[in-house]
Amino acid sequence: MASAGKIIKCKAAVAWEPNKPLVIEEIEVAPPEANEVRIKIVATGVCHTDLYHLFEGMHKDGFPTVLGHEGAGIVESVGPGVTEFQPGDKVIPLFISQCRECRFCKSPKTNQCEQGWAAHRYDAMASIATRFTCKGKKVLQFMGTSTFSEYTVMNQIAVAKIDPAAPLDKVCLLGCGVCTGFGAAVNTAKVEPDSTCAVFGLGAVGLAAVMGCKAAGAKRIFAVDINPDKFEKAKVFGATDFLNPNDHSKPISQVLAEMTGGGVDYSLECVGNVAVMRNALESCVKGWGVSVVVGWTDKHDFAARPIQLIAGRTWKGSLFGGFKSKDGVPGMVRAYMDKKIKLDEFITHNMDLVQINDAIELMKHGGWYILLLRTVVSESGVPEAMKYLPTMPPREFQPSILIS
Amino acid sequence: MASAGKIIKCKAAVAWEPNKPLVIEEIEVAPPEANEVRIKIVATGVCHTDLYHLFEGMHKDGFPTVLGHEGAGIVESVGPGVTEFQPGDKVIPLFISQCRECRFCKSPKTNQCEQGWAAHRYDAMASIATRFTCKGKKVLQFMGTSTFSEYTVMNQIAVAKIDPAAPLDKVCLLGCGVCTGFGAAVNTAKVEPDSTCAVFGLGAVGLAAVMGCKAAGAKRIFAVDINPDKFEKAKVFGATDFLNPNDHSKPISQVLAEMTGGGVDYSLECVGNVAVMRNALESCVKGWGVSVVVGWTDKHDFAARPIQLIAGRTWKGSLFGGFKSKDGVPGMVRAYMDKKIKLDEFITHNMDLVQINDAIELMKHGGWYILLLRTVVSESGVPEAMKYLPTMPPREFQPSILIS
Repeated sequence: MASAGKIIKCKAAVAWEPNKPLVIEEIEVAPPEANEVRIKIVATGVCHTDLYHLFEGMHKDGFPTVLGHEGAGIVESVGPGVTEFQPGDKVIPLFISQCRECRFCKSPKTNQCEQGWAAHRYDAMASIATRFTCKGKKVLQFMGTSTFSEYTVMNQIAVAKIDPAAPLDKVCLLGCGVCTGFGAAVNTAKVEPDSTCAVFGLGAVGLAAVMGCKAAGAKRIFAVDINPDKFEKAKVFGATDFLNPNDHSKPISQVLAEMTGGGVDYSLECVGNVAVMRNALESCVKGWGVSVVVGWTDKHDFAARPIQLIAGRTWKGSLFGGFKSKDGVPGMVRAYMDKKIKLDEFITHNMDLVQINDAIELMKHGGWYILLLRTVVSESGVPEAMKYLPTMPPREFQPSILIS
Repeated sequence: MASAGKIIKCKAAVAWEPNKPLVIEEIEVAPPEANEVRIKIVATGVCHTDLYHLFEGMHKDGFPTVLGHEGAGIVESVGPGVTEFQPGDKVIPLFISQCRECRFCKSPKTNQCEQGWAAHRYDAMASIATRFTCKGKKVLQFMGTSTFSEYTVMNQIAVAKIDPAAPLDKVCLLGCGVCTGFGAAVNTAKVEPDSTCAVFGLGAVGLAAVMGCKAAGAKRIFAVDINPDKFEKAKVFGATDFLNPNDHSKPISQVLAEMTGGGVDYSLECVGNVAVMRNALESCVKGWGVSVVVGWTDKHDFAARPIQLIAGRTWKGSLFGGFKSKDGVPGMVRAYMDKKIKLDEFITHNMDLVQINDAIELMKHGGWYILLLRTVVSESGVPEAMKYLPTMPPREFQPSILIS
């Protein structure tokens, strides 16, 4: 392309500082260096992890940055040494890399990689290398990806080439949320046929976990949320039973134990709340129950009584659903193309990049005021979401589920 | 035998109330009822769980009782319906039953059983059915076993028939501690060849865990204890590296991470201290590290940051080392007879039943003042242990390891 080898000036939503609205700026995106790929981002989801960094994580060294890590796009140009990609390839940027060479990549036990951005600046949630500048300042790449930009640059170990026929405004969701939830059930919990499962929290990750349980052959899938408006959607993804903890005076773990003869075989916490993590563990049957922490939080300890584990339960965690990223994402794209997994049903809003702050506001209130799963920001976006907003009072970010 | 069908009067150490010395009493042991076996106890170990019940658990409904759950003996008589056992069989009483019929017994995923004593009166640590009386009062059977008695009565689902050549004053240790530690490594953690392991706490359970790691082919086994006197013994069981947390200013998890390039593959907490449980988890490598809670405590929550699990660690627990009891114990006895596992090296003292309070005192102070692993109480016991006692000041029970 004509732009290859040159700096690209384009629009990006810059987070100059924590807890402030993003600013649509013109940024400069440098050409890809050795082993790097420059990508034109076509569509991106907005994920709670973006909000977490902006409003809760707020590491001082993490700004200014361009957020966004759930995108899809087209390769614009490649740097020296890149043979796997060429301009025009449809790709999904990966916040978990797969170098195929480190001890983690070589192990079948994990999807982590020692060569990714997180190996160096995990605390600031940004890679050391950034190809962004704005107004003369270096701007960081959040989670190595930064999909809230028209262009971004990624190391090739963190890019997945996907089916050229894939609709980018749908499969972008496989860059984080849907793989995270689906894989947590299938890869991490390893849900077995005819088992019983409980999914705590019915945001996009939780619904994807429900879909994963269903795909794995679970016979009974309990969908748990304090917002009953989400149950209808959970049914679409395969949930069979619906529980609102606010409807019960007993702890939800006890309710589940009574309904299942001792507890579920698998539980998945898709909220990021340590009290819910405990509930999820305690909802598992002794002997073999497996509980997986999927939701993200880093502000508090999770806890339980030792007997919960000694009695035979296992507590695990899942990052990106345990998918080896370069191997797993193209496969999930194929599964979508073959109608084996759903994606369209996650998308409730489409907006344009300039409306990013509206998308974030929607996300902050999602699950309380309106049924917001994912807002996909793309060039063809329409600002329909805004019609839901006027009645919402300003409020602090809250997790979408709290169980006493 | 002449005693069959009749009440047997014999000696037992009765715990009339919490936190008091046991009293050697003459008790009545009723004949076995349907599916029960009356056993002459020949030898028994003293385990921390006995002390926990006496000094810490102290459930009001758990007394009076006869403690002891790590014994071995000979069948004296059998009740109606018992075909598996006959008088003269050498057996080990099992505090975890194996009925072979319940959903737990039918699952390969767990060694628990729904038909055992714990199914009914877990909180009081005693079975509903007891065949003991003393001075006109019903005396409970602790953990269903009560091996601090010359005779006990067990349901046949909780008795393992063992090799007639097995020395009972050695293999009694397979009734709890050695199977618990060894199996936690082999069955629960599933330690793999060439892996790195860390065992926290070098009591009998911890040393058995070291032996299990070694048997599973671990290439490096870190033995961690604040009492360096235990390291020599740990070496006998296969430990390769020795760490006293008091020798380091950094957290022991960081020391281990630096020594292993990120953490060990497997860690086993054999203390029963929630702070150590956290240390053990944090000592595991991200991606695939597995930490197993083996030590028992029920007074506090264990806790950690969610990222510890999300980064790929797994937290498990182990009860009786994950051994299906009737299947597993005879196999462990054979392993001892075939010199594949060690037992003699655990035994530091032999005493008589009438010295039970001395044995308990030794255990309370074990790991601090003298190297006490297990005191085996048997008819041939000699009071040699007492010579270690005079210099010990009275003190409260403490876990044998505390890591800041």
